[in-house]
Order: sequence, then C-alpha cells, then structure tokens
Amino acid sequence: MVTLPGQMHVSHFERLHALPLTAVDIQAGFWKDKQAVNRHNSLPHGFAMLEESGALDNLRIAAGMKSGEHRGMRFQDSDVYKWLEAASYELAKADDPALRQQVDAAIDLIAAAQMEDGYINSYYQIKFKPENRWTNEAHDHELYCAGHLFEAAVAHHRATGSRRLLDIACRFADHIDTVFGKGKREEAPGHQGVELALIELYRETGEIRYLALAEFFINERGKNTMKGWAYFSPSYYQDRVPVRDNDRVEGHAVRAMYLTSGMADLYLETGEQALLDALHRQWHDFTSHKMYITGGAGARHFDEAFGEPYELPDDTGYCETCAAIASIMWNWRMLRVTGEARYAALIERTLYNGFLSGVSLDGRTFFYVNPLLVREAHVRQPWFQCACCPPNVMRLIASLNRYLVTVSVGELQVHQYAGAAIAADIPEVGPVHLTMETAYPWEGTVRITVDDVGSGDWRLRLRVPDWCSAPRVQLNGQPVEAVLEESYLLLARRWQSGDVITLELPMAPRLMRAHPYVSSSRGALALERGPLVYCLEGIDQPEAAHVLQAQLDPNTAFEVEPRPDLLGGTVLISGYGFLPDLSAWENRLYLPHHVASVLPRRPVELRFVPYHQWGNRGTGPMRVWVPMD
Amino acid sequence: MVTLPGQMHVSHFERLHALPLTAVDIQAGFWKDKQAVNRHNSLPHGFAMLEESGALDNLRIAAGMKSGEHRGMRFQDSDVYKWLEAASYELAKADDPALRQQVDAAIDLIAAAQMEDGYINSYYQIKFKPENRWTNEAHDHELYCAGHLFEAAVAHHRATGSRRLLDIACRFADHIDTVFGKGKREEAPGHQGVELALIELYRETGEIRYLALAEFFINERGKNTMKGWAYFSPSYYQDRVPVRDNDRVEGHAVRAMYLTSGMADLYLETGEQALLDALHRQWHDFTSHKMYITGGAGARHFDEAFGEPYELPDDTGYCETCAAIASIMWNWRMLRVTGEARYAALIERTLYNGFLSGVSLDGRTFFYVNPLLVREAHVRQPWFQCACCPPNVMRLIASLNRYLVTVSVGELQVHQYAGAAIAADIPEVGPVHLTMETAYPWEGTVRITVDDVGSGDWRLRLRVPDWCSAPRVQLNGQPVEAVLEESYLLLARRWQSGDVITLELPMAPRLMRAHPYVSSSRGALALERGPLVYCLEGIDQPEAAHVLQAQLDPNTAFEVEPRPDLLGGTVLISGYGFLPDLSAWENRLYLPHHVASVLPRRPVELRFVPYHQWGNRGTGPMRVWVPMD
Repeated sequence: MVTLPGQMHVSHFERLHALPLTAVDIQAGFWKDKQAVNRHNSLPHGFAMLEESGALDNLRIAAGMKSGEHRGMRFQDSDVYKWLEAASYELAKADDPALRQQVDAAIDLIAAAQMEDGYINSYYQIKFKPENRWTNEAHDHELYCAGHLFEAAVAHHRATGSRRLLDIACRFADHIDTVFGKGKREEAPGHQGVELALIELYRETGEIRYLALAEFFINERGKNTMKGWAYFSPSYYQDRVPVRDNDRVEGHAVRAMYLTSGMADLYLETGEQALLDALHRQWHDFTSHKMYITGGAGARHFDEAFGEPYELPDDTGYCETCAAIASIMWNWRMLRVTGEARYAALIERTLYNGFLSGVSLDGRTFFYVNPLLVREAHVRQPWFQCACCPPNVMRLIASLNRYLVTVSVGELQVHQYAGAAIAADIPEVGPVHLTMETAYPWEGTVRITVDDVGSGDWRLRLRVPDWCSAPRVQLNGQPVEAVLEESYLLLARRWQSGDVITLELPMAPRLMRAHPYVSSSRGALALERGPLVYCLEGIDQPEAAHVLQAQLDPNTAFEVEPRPDLLGGTVLISGYGFLPDLSAWENRLYLPHHVASVLPRRPVELRFVPYHQWGNRGTGPMRVWVPMD
Repeated sequence: MVTLPGQMHVSHFERLHALPLTAVDIQAGFWKDKQAVNRHNSLPHGFAMLEESGALDNLRIAAGMKSGEHRGMRFQDSDVYKWLEAASYELAKADDPALRQQVDAAIDLIAAAQMEDGYINSYYQIKFKPENRWTNEAHDHELYCAGHLFEAAVAHHRATGSRRLLDIACRFADHIDTVFGKGKREEAPGHQGVELALIELYRETGEIRYLALAEFFINERGKNTMKGWAYFSPSYYQDRVPVRDNDRVEGHAVRAMYLTSGMADLYLETGEQALLDALHRQWHDFTSHKMYITGGAGARHFDEAFGEPYELPDDTGYCETCAAIASIMWNWRMLRVTGEARYAALIERTLYNGFLSGVSLDGRTFFYVNPLLVREAHVRQPWFQCACCPPNVMRLIASLNRYLVTVSVGELQVHQYAGAAIAADIPEVGPVHLTMETAYPWEGTVRITVDDVGSGDWRLRLRVPDWCSAPRVQLNGQPVEAVLEESYLLLARRWQSGDVITLELPMAPRLMRAHPYVSSSRGALALERGPLVYCLEGIDQPEAAHVLQAQLDPNTAFEVEPRPDLLGGTVLISGYGFLPDLSAWENRLYLPHHVASVLPRRPVELRFVPYHQWGNRGTGPMRVWVPMD
C-alpha cells in the first residue's frame, strides 16, 4: 500500500490517488469564473431557498424549536446536507464569515434535531411515530438522506477540521448500524447514496463498521422485491438482480449511478473482482447504448430512468442534471480504479455539456431536465419542489478541484485542464508544485510550469482528449519526446524548476453522428469543438423557427468566432445549410416521398452556440442534432 | 328533421345517417374472416378471461352470491360490459345458444348486483361503505363503468329487443341523475365515456334527462382542478380548460377521444356551434401534430397520453389499442356531422393499421401498446391486469358493419369497402338493396350490384381513399359519368335492378415521409399499399437484425406478392436497399461524420409485411419507418 505524505486514507485498490481538498487551487479561467458564481451567487441563493422551501424549518420543527407541519418532499433534509457539503468545499478554499455563519447555523439545527439515539429525519420525526421509522425503505429515503448527511460531514471535517458535523454523522451511522445488518433489518434502501457515503465516512474515521454496513446494503440489493405505487418495478430501484449479476444500467438513472459509485468505492477498499466486472459491464451498457452525446443519462421522464438500448429521444430525453453528476462521480471512481483515460474523457464530456447546462450563467436558476431538442420553451427555475439538482450542482462545482489531477508512485496525472495551481505530494518523490494556464475549453493550449520539482525525477502524464487526434507538446519551447500511451502523453524526465510544458490540442469544429439504431438522431449531425457540444438556439438565427426547419450542409466550412462579450465569454461557430420550403407540409404530418423530396430550398447561415450556454437569453427552440442536407 | 323509416332516433344535426344494426351484413372477405374469428375465438376467450380475472366474481360478491375480496382494477366491471356489448352485436347477426347463455348469465349477475337505488359498481360495493360512493370521481371510474354499462345495454336492446339490461341501465342512470347536476354534485368524471353513453341511452329511450346529464358532465369539465397521485395534472384529464375553449388533444389519449366523441354526440343532438368549433380545432391538432401514420394516438407510455406537437417517437410510442378505437369512434361521429371524407379516411387508416395490430390473427392475444419500432421483442398477451383493450377490440370488430354505409335524403354513401349485403332505407327513396364484393384491402376492385333500386332515382356516393389519385369507375362494364366531389365519386341516376358499379382503386406501393419536425422518422420512409401501412419484420429477412440495420433505396422497384398461404392471407412487398457494414459502430454510440458516412454497404432485399399482421409468427425486431439510403 502506498503511503501519501500528508494524505488521508488511501484506498487499497486504487491505481491513481486523489489529492487533498486544497491541493489544487483553480485560480484562473473558465472554472474559476464558475466557482466564483457558485460561491457568490448560487450558495447564498441556495441558503435562501432552503429557508423558503421549508427545509430548514423542518429541522426546527423536528428539534422542537418551532411548531408546524413538515413541508416539501420526504427527502427535503437532503437539500440542506448537499448545500452544506458545497459550502464546506468553499470554506476550505477561503473563509467567508457570512457563509461560515450559515453553515454553522445549519449544523446547529441538525444537531438540535438529532434524537437521543442518533436518528435524524425531519419527515419521519414530524409526521410519524418513532416506531414507524425504517418501515418503508424502498420509498421513504431515510437512508438516502443519511448518506447526504455523511457526505456533508466528511466534506465539512476535511474543510474545517471541525468534528461537529462528523460526530453527528457518526452517531446517526452508529444508530443505522444497530438497525440494519444480518439478523437485523435485512434490506437495501430504495434510493442509493448511503453506500458511497458510508465508505467515505469509513475513510474519514477509520471505523470499519461503516465499510461493512455499506457492503451489507450493496449485497442486500437485487432480491426483485422493491415496488412503489402502481408503477415502479424492481428494475427502477436496480433491485431486479443482485448487483454483481447485473449487465445493465437500468431504472432511475441517479439511483443506478449512485449505486455504481458505491460499488466502485467498495471495490477500491476490497478489490473484489466480481464488483469490478459488473461495473465494467454496466459502464459498457451505459456508454454503448444509453448515453446522450452530452454525457446525459436517462431517456425517460416518467421514472427518470434509462430506457432500452438506443432509446435516446432528443425531445423527450430526460438527462437529469443529478444523473450527469452521478455519472461524473462514478467515472471519477473508475478512473482511480483503472487509470484509464476513457473515464476522464467521459467526465470531461459530461462536465462541459450535460452537467453544465443544468445551471444558468448567473448561478441562480437551474434545469432539472436537459433535453437535446426543444421545440417551444424550456426555462431554468430558481428551485424545484423536488430540489435535488440545484444543491447537487453547487457541491460539484465547489469540489471540481478534485477531478483535475491524481498521483501514483513517481507520477502525476493531469486529467482535466483548467487554470490552476497544483501542490501535490507524489509518492516516493515528495512535494511538487505546478502551475497550469489555459483558456480551455475555448482554446486548446495548456501551459504547465513546474515551479517546484520535488526530488526531480518523475513522470508527468497529460491526458489527450478522445476528440483530439493531433496533440503537440513542447518543453521550454522545444519539441520533446513524449510517448502517447493509452491516451496520455507521458513525459518522464528529471525536471528543472521553471520547466514549461506546452500542450496544444487543436480544436477544429467537427461533425458527429449517432449510432444508426438511435431513431431521433438519424440523418442528423451534432457539432462539437474541443470538449464542447454545440447547438442551434433560436435567438442566434434570423428566425427562431430555423432551428427546427434548417438542414446542415455536411460539407460546410465553419467559421469560429470568439465572442468575449457574449454569454460571459463564448466561442460561436457559423456554418451553412439549407432552409427548405415547408409549405407543402402545412397541416400535414405525412406526405408521399415524391412530394416531400423535391421541396425547394435556399441556403441559410446557421449559428451554433455551446449547448451548456443555451437558454441564458430568454427561451425558444434549441436543437443539438441538426438534420443533414 | 329527416324521418328514416324503420330507423330509431335520428339526431337533429347529422348530415349522414347511420343504418340500423343489421342493415349491413358483412358476408365475405377480409372483415368477414375477422368477424368470424372475433365471434368464434375472441368472445369465448373473453368470457373465460372475465371469469379468470375475477370480473364476474366481483359481481357475484357484490350481489351477495359469493364471499371474497374484490379482484383487479377498480374499473373491472367495465370489462364485463364491453364484452356484453360485443356479444350483443354478434347475437344481432345470428343466434348462438352458448353465447346467448353467457350473455344472459352475465346480465343475471349485473341484475343481482344492482342495489335497490340503482347503483352498481362492484369495487365500491365490496370495498367501501355506501356513503363513500361518488367521493373520488377524478380517480375511481364509477361513471366510466356506468358508461360502458349503458353502451352495452343499448347494444343489447337493439340486438335482442330485450329491455332487461336496458332497464338496469336506466335505473342506474336515474340514480346518477339524482346525485349529479346543478345544485347536486357538480363535477365531471375523471375518465370519460359516460357522456357519449348517456346520449346513446337518450337516443334509445327518448329520456331527455340523459341528454341533459351528458351535457352537464361535458360542461363541468375544465375547472383545472383534477389531480391524481403525484403525477397527473389537469390536462391528463382534459380538465385544464373548459372543453369548448380547448385547442388541443392532450393528456390521456383514450379519455381525450371518448370526450370528443361525447362532444360530437352532443353536437349531433344540440347543434351547438362552439362544440363543433372546438372539435375541429382538436381534430386539427390531432391529425397535424400528434397522430402516427398508423392512425395510432398517444406518444407517451407514462400517462398513456398525447405528447407535445411532433413528439411521435417510433420506439417508445404508445398507440394504445383503445386509443385507436376511440379515434374511430370520434371520426365516425365527425363523419355523420359533416359528411366529409377525411373522417372516413382516418377511420380506414386506423382500422387497418393502428387498431388491427392490437389483435392476433387467432383473436386470442392482444397488444395494449402498438409501437412503430421494436428492437427486441413485443408479444401479444391473452389478457391484461388492466384489460380495457381486448373487449374493446371485440366490440369494435363486432360492430364494424355500422361504419361502412350511411344515408341521407336521396343518397347512399359508401365509406368503407368490404364484402357486404346492404339493406338501406334511403330517406325519400325507400328500401334499396346492394351487394358489395371486393378483395379489399388486398386488391382495389370493388363491385357493387344494385339488387333492389327502391324508387329508382337516387345518388350513390363512393369514397375515394386519400391514397388513391386515379380511381376508375364503370357501370355495367362501361365508362360512366361520375363527379369527383370532395373525395367522393358521385353517381346520380335512375338505377336499374342488376346495375353493377365497378370501382377500381389502383394500389401501387407508395413511399411516405413524415413531417421534418418528427425526430424519429427523419431520413426514413414508410411503405404503404392501399389502406395498409407496411413494416419490416425480422422473420421475413435473411437475418432479423436487417430490420434495424438496413437502409431502403427510395428508387427501388417493388414487387407485390400475394400470399394466400401466409398469415391467413396476405400481400407481401419486396424492394431493395442496402446493408451497411456497422463494424465501425461496435461499442460506439457516436462517431465522427467522416467515419460514419463512408461505411461500405452491400445491396439487400427487404421484404415488407402489413403492419397489422406483424408479431403473429413469434417475435423479434419490427420497424415501420425504414432509414433511407
């Protein structure tokens, strides 16, 4: 086992090791701006919404500090926990008395609400008698809320050093451990999340019972018994077959990928091959059959679920923002397990597209659902009755630092490019310091300065995104030998302080096609540049309806237009296509081919905008997959 | 007002008049076979299923003849009523002691179950106290079941002359009239059906209170208050706006079109223009935005509902068999209101495609859902937990006779072509008799012999289907002058007994396109011939996967191959296309266009089968919209 100086728990079975919370400081560029908006706009907005939605009042009522009815969803407490997790990551970056006061106030409420035996769940505490706890786990989200409390507690402890929330979490976890287990309640939660959270709690506290309890919940799943209302079958809950036997991502997408994240965490600690095999099969099913080009997950509105293979409608696609987050969480763990670039590549794709579309430029409104075709309107909302997404967005943006860099013996890996200072302790090398500068995702140049070389001899591994076929790398302005090894450029040398590596990732616009089995993308093209998926938005066309009417000429030349003045900075892309005369279609849904195939058409310019930025200038039609000529 | 000799009630505002139940005898050909299967296979199978599913037991328990719990859906009684309606139509055609015994036994149970005050609903009678009746109309289907009882009662009375079931129905209707109305319970049912049924009951009995009650229920709808479980909004129930203000078909497709059928019935009696205007707007929304090429209705599985305009996914399309039936019911009323061919054309399209796919060739298994693309498997079932579709199929096939012919002053209209003897009383002409012979839908020749000319001078109007651009008509083997007037060929003359009209409707295969806003049909073609939509089915291709892989050459010649030996008689169509080499797509969902656009491909023969016949030879992939070259 590797020992990381100054590092917390190191999982036995990880190839790549995460850095401590504050090791990477995102200090410039795209993500610096996003983190600033998240800190200064989203977090205060979120706290106000916790108050307005009753989430904080629920805790007050549970604590006996106030009277009244429970408000909101049965899992309303989790909004508070996710917000606390996000705020903790921000406190780790820099103190802010106002934010700290809100954090402490929220923890005060949680502490006051916690019962003698460690139990906390305001919905149950207010609505039910104590003996009704844990009686409807498939549906009632008690363990789901506990999981978010544990994640918040670990984040808060790492960020502040305070054990206050961690102790609350441990008391609750200890209580759960008395209730669930072999010979006790033998059942898994309906909504996953507690598994990965218990493992994090184990990592933070060293309490092996928490790891065992996580494993117990993972093993309990798959008895084919969970049902809900009239509609939800066991596969909705990933309960159709035992987790190790499942070849599919199925059912509710967030649950499915919180589960696979927990399974990957369990593998990281136990190295059980059957878990990893199942994860590989399910990842294959996801990426080969059930993933949108934005990284989005979940084809179906009704049960927020994965569909059948190739069921990826653009208009009714669900792509819940939380599912994008869950996918990033899963892929982050797979990356540490395997060291393989494809997981970092999918984190990148999801981050810049299916995830980031979930939040407005000002950080105060959110999409719950992220379709790839909107014919009329789709508007971000300040909050939701089921408000899982907004604070989930906040915790991901606030903790983005963790996804950039990992280390292993004698090696540092850069997976994501952003303007950042990196202070890493490379095993068997010692502390190094690097500065990364880039205008990513708008430009493909990344400049890395090695400020502090440690013991000098070590390897630097730079990920080459799967969209880039011709990376160029230089050292101090000169060509340098770098091996391209499984999508990473490997630079192994004795570093000198002040060495500058320049990586060029050319970002030519490129046209993508979807698998021919996907009905809604047939005969259509998606435009990408760098890590960004583009779309047509009504406001950028002479007439909004062009979004729905136009065809793209696949042989068009594209013009790339940096627009620092627009959308807080963007790069637009223009190309040419055709506008058919659709008058023959008026009041018709079906026409003979010989009529429909000879419609006159005229050339038209089409202007594309990054998908994640759409819907920030009013609403109207939008599409990712543009029909071809 | 027209008086039809020997006819029952004639609605004040109908342009075309229906004939009595037994006026049209389907005596040969396609529909004769379907009616025989329905009578000899489906009806006995259905009765057995009523027993097995508990539907009959529920009535026994409600009657106190048996003890036990209610089984099945809260609207389980309606299965019995729909079966009774179907069986009654068959008894009208010819007696069958075994069938008559089952009908009488079912009526005995209903009579025994009916309470003193007229109320019948086994679910409420068994599960609830009497005072809980009518307390949850949005959800509990008490009025929906009543409606099906009324329809069955009218059919049984018309078929047999017996008032037994009709009296039961009237007692229940009278009871409902004491409960609902201005100053009484002022609410509409959550699931429509009672409106059209009350109007039928009014027509059969002359009791004006039933018409008034139907109007009351129609007027009550649209308060934007109905909700169900966590999911269903007022538009699910067509309760978003008052019915006369609605421009959309929206929500649950069957409810929506049982409602429009009831509205059309109300217009037929009252002539209220606002109702007709709303019907025209909603019909336009349906046929211009929300209808599958099969006539299928309902894009969404979750709430069995219409989607947004152009939301017509082929794989996850719902197209409930009952929704096809509801559409036929609505269009049949619109046809009588307006006399316009487009309604008869849509009946034809729906009947031969989206409806008929709902039942197997042997009449003993059923599709609830009728998608246009199946990638793996979709299998007809003997019955369903929610068994609305099977007995609905039975009553439509058994009553198909009514849709063929109508009359008006001095005129007889033929809307649908089938081998049939027609004994019609043409107003101001008197009784005429015609014999129609045709191999429709396989061949486009229709031969009509005028056996009995009545007073001699009258007009014959023959519908020219919208798919036929070059109809030919002859009289006694000679060209005859016939005006093509709004899609009807009009022959006005002094008929001679023995006159033979021969109508030729050439049935060349034709390729259809869907509106470019429909994502899932983009770049794809549907093959039609005559009234039939065709599809590719796995079993007819060298490899089943060709269904998903092949592209159709839009310039292919088609070979039409009559196959009396296959599928109880069919016409297959073969054409050519291409089979691309998809190996570049292995494990990939997205590829650069420059890779995906140069896949090698080889020519392949593609064999099409009528959509309504698919899934009768095992299961496997099927598709209607075939990607183009």
